[in-house]
Amino acid sequence: MSKLPNMFSIKHFLVVSLALNISLILRIVYDNEDGLGGYMRLRKTTTYESDTESRTEVPITHRLRLSTSNFANSTSTDHAEDRDRVINLDHGDPKMYDKFWRKMGDKTTITIPGWQSISYFSDTTNICWFLEPEFAKEVVRLHNVVGNAVTEGRYIVVGTGSSQLILAALYALSSHNAAEPIDVVSAAPYYSSYPLMTDFQKSGHYKWGGDARSFDKDGPYIELVTSPNNPEGHKTGPVLNRSNGLLIHDLAYYWPHYTPISSPSDHDITLFTVSKSTGHAGLRIGWALVKDQDVAKRMTKFIELNTIGVSKDSQLRAAKVLKVVSNSTEEENTQEGESFFKYNYEVMEQRWKQLRAALEANGLFTVANFPNGFCTFFNKKTENLPAFVWMKCEKDIEDCQSLLSQHKIMSRGGKHFGVSQRYVRVSLLDTDENFNLFIDRLSAMQL
Amino acid sequence: MSKLPNMFSIKHFLVVSLALNISLILRIVYDNEDGLGGYMRLRKTTTYESDTESRTEVPITHRLRLSTSNFANSTSTDHAEDRDRVINLDHGDPKMYDKFWRKMGDKTTITIPGWQSISYFSDTTNICWFLEPEFAKEVVRLHNVVGNAVTEGRYIVVGTGSSQLILAALYALSSHNAAEPIDVVSAAPYYSSYPLMTDFQKSGHYKWGGDARSFDKDGPYIELVTSPNNPEGHKTGPVLNRSNGLLIHDLAYYWPHYTPISSPSDHDITLFTVSKSTGHAGLRIGWALVKDQDVAKRMTKFIELNTIGVSKDSQLRAAKVLKVVSNSTEEENTQEGESFFKYNYEVMEQRWKQLRAALEANGLFTVANFPNGFCTFFNKKTENLPAFVWMKCEKDIEDCQSLLSQHKIMSRGGKHFGVSQRYVRVSLLDTDENFNLFIDRLSAMQL
Repeated sequence: MSKLPNMFSIKHFLVVSLALNISLILRIVYDNEDGLGGYMRLRKTTTYESDTESRTEVPITHRLRLSTSNFANSTSTDHAEDRDRVINLDHGDPKMYDKFWRKMGDKTTITIPGWQSISYFSDTTNICWFLEPEFAKEVVRLHNVVGNAVTEGRYIVVGTGSSQLILAALYALSSHNAAEPIDVVSAAPYYSSYPLMTDFQKSGHYKWGGDARSFDKDGPYIELVTSPNNPEGHKTGPVLNRSNGLLIHDLAYYWPHYTPISSPSDHDITLFTVSKSTGHAGLRIGWALVKDQDVAKRMTKFIELNTIGVSKDSQLRAAKVLKVVSNSTEEENTQEGESFFKYNYEVMEQRWKQLRAALEANGLFTVANFPNGFCTFFNKKTENLPAFVWMKCEKDIEDCQSLLSQHKIMSRGGKHFGVSQRYVRVSLLDTDENFNLFIDRLSAMQL
Repeated sequence: MSKLPNMFSIKHFLVVSLALNISLILRIVYDNEDGLGGYMRLRKTTTYESDTESRTEVPITHRLRLSTSNFANSTSTDHAEDRDRVINLDHGDPKMYDKFWRKMGDKTTITIPGWQSISYFSDTTNICWFLEPEFAKEVVRLHNVVGNAVTEGRYIVVGTGSSQLILAALYALSSHNAAEPIDVVSAAPYYSSYPLMTDFQKSGHYKWGGDARSFDKDGPYIELVTSPNNPEGHKTGPVLNRSNGLLIHDLAYYWPHYTPISSPSDHDITLFTVSKSTGHAGLRIGWALVKDQDVAKRMTKFIELNTIGVSKDSQLRAAKVLKVVSNSTEEENTQEGESFFKYNYEVMEQRWKQLRAALEANGLFTVANFPNGFCTFFNKKTENLPAFVWMKCEKDIEDCQSLLSQHKIMSRGGKHFGVSQRYVRVSLLDTDENFNLFIDRLSAMQL
């Protein structure tokens, strides 16, 4: 009689203890870090897929599975190492794009001779004197091809990723003689890095003012508008609309594979980045389209004082990549090539189908439904296919991030975006292997 | 009688008016801008040599002239366009190095396929998770080859140029809970960008405290030490040496072609940059050797919040360039190649010879004499050959920068370095064409 309860309790103790360990490790990492650095700490306690693994060349059709009935029949994800592997879907690391660029072979290969990039200067006739003319040309061409932004009469400012451009824009828009720093606001849920980026320098020019919806001061302010929104995925606009407000539009995801392109954006300051458009996050290249000359000058000055310009090599690579994206679109129209946007729209469409099926299977989370919209780029109705899924836990689950971490899925909880931990953001841009693991775990998940 | 004075006064008026125009344009640029942006504004009013012109392949021996008697017999600089051309020796743009790298042919050529640099991450096991392992390896190797820095037990943090690393170090060293920002000081004449970089964000963490020699507060401080010093060229150390002081050593010029390497540097935080070591300013790559793990973590965090890492492409290019520099040194020892440091030491030696001869010819300026020193790298006594010449105007000249600008030489006046305008800094790292024009104008200069 006494033997059975004893064995039972030891097993139970072991399971509870292991779950607690994993949960605690993840919690420590998350509570301390909102940025990318947390990844590194976790690395030592888990197995992370190597570059080689994540870059295995497998035709996309073999990886993607359509129906929920297939979820039990995992292929590569059946291995023991995969079952134990923590998958990091916190950061939106765009590894999904690796496959398309490998398919393109040497079309985007670039050769840089040793004597290139000696001078600090790229174009001394341009306000943004470190902007490579070739990159500027391809930015304009791509926006014209896609129809997602007005470029005429705009100054282009290149940045070390759009992060640097957000800081440059805050610097440019704030009055440097003001007694108080200007408030920087954004409607919750807002991009989790906005408060951190705004406040880490403890600048006397600007400070984080919180959720735009609850901003009740009379003074001037800067509103950060992310559309489609990160984390939610909806198209958005400013929520305050007061005469003393200044706007920065972060349109990182306003590309046809994520959202229907309704019309060319036409704002005072609009930010884009290659990290989320073409998937080249390691290039650290973003660009701003700026209406006002003086703002463009001040943004340039910021980047001059911050980093004395932006890597020429990465600008040249970005120029080549944007050129191939534009070419691929034009070739698609003449049936000669594979369109970057069409290919990646199909990947995202497939991923969202799997995701919705998995969510339906477990019933633990709710996710918004997005209306289809007419896309001027594809010239037909297309779906809204955000780069992240923003999930709300149902039933009595108070901490959605912790629930996922118990299932070895690293994600980013609602508190980082200014809302409750019942919400969580999960990246959909990882490798097929990791995305499939996520889907498998999600569909098998039970309370 | 009336005709002659009239003609005379019209001619005079024209000359005076033209001189005034040039002087005013230069003055506007300089008064508003200390950084690189001023160059761009001037561009529209002057003729600046095109890339093609500056990259003409002419053997260095044909360009360099040894004795003052040759100064009148200029070669390429005799053209009318050269006589009218403003030469920009303000920034230290290292165009001199173009020639060496062209000589190296395809040794430093790099080919990057389109699928490279997709992920944000370079090495998730490293504190500096965006540091490319290949770049880190070549940094360590080069320091070992040159013997200018201890790398053992150091953390390497890569930055978008050493500018970003200076800011990262200020952020890392300051106490974020302090009531007052920590004072940042440097001994005058200090690098002109230090005050601007420290204060442009109006940070609550740190603020510019001025000349270290006149710093009389009791509290904690950060001292920036540039050795060899920019602008002076002397080897320096901290001037305060108090127990509550923190040090950042900026050793951008501690390479054997500029100064005798006396021993490996061994400081808490040491900064280097490819801009001034190999001449690749357009890469925007610098690195820090950091003793304390926590400081390395905080510097990494700064770069994460500032630019989410550093261009991978430029790190890979920098790795290749550093590798070729190390190889060239080893090949030189086996008589197989041309040593980067030997070649560029000879260029600098030649330039300083021409410069001293020209200065002797006109007697308007004084320049320090530097003692020779034993260089452990060259294993012999070598000269101190700074990248800039720091000149003091003699006689009654109050504004040395204005005097040079009247001779169409853009330079940086003493006030930017915390001293009087009787001093001026002139870059010696420009193309042979521009350097020769500078020497010609200097030797022909009269009050």
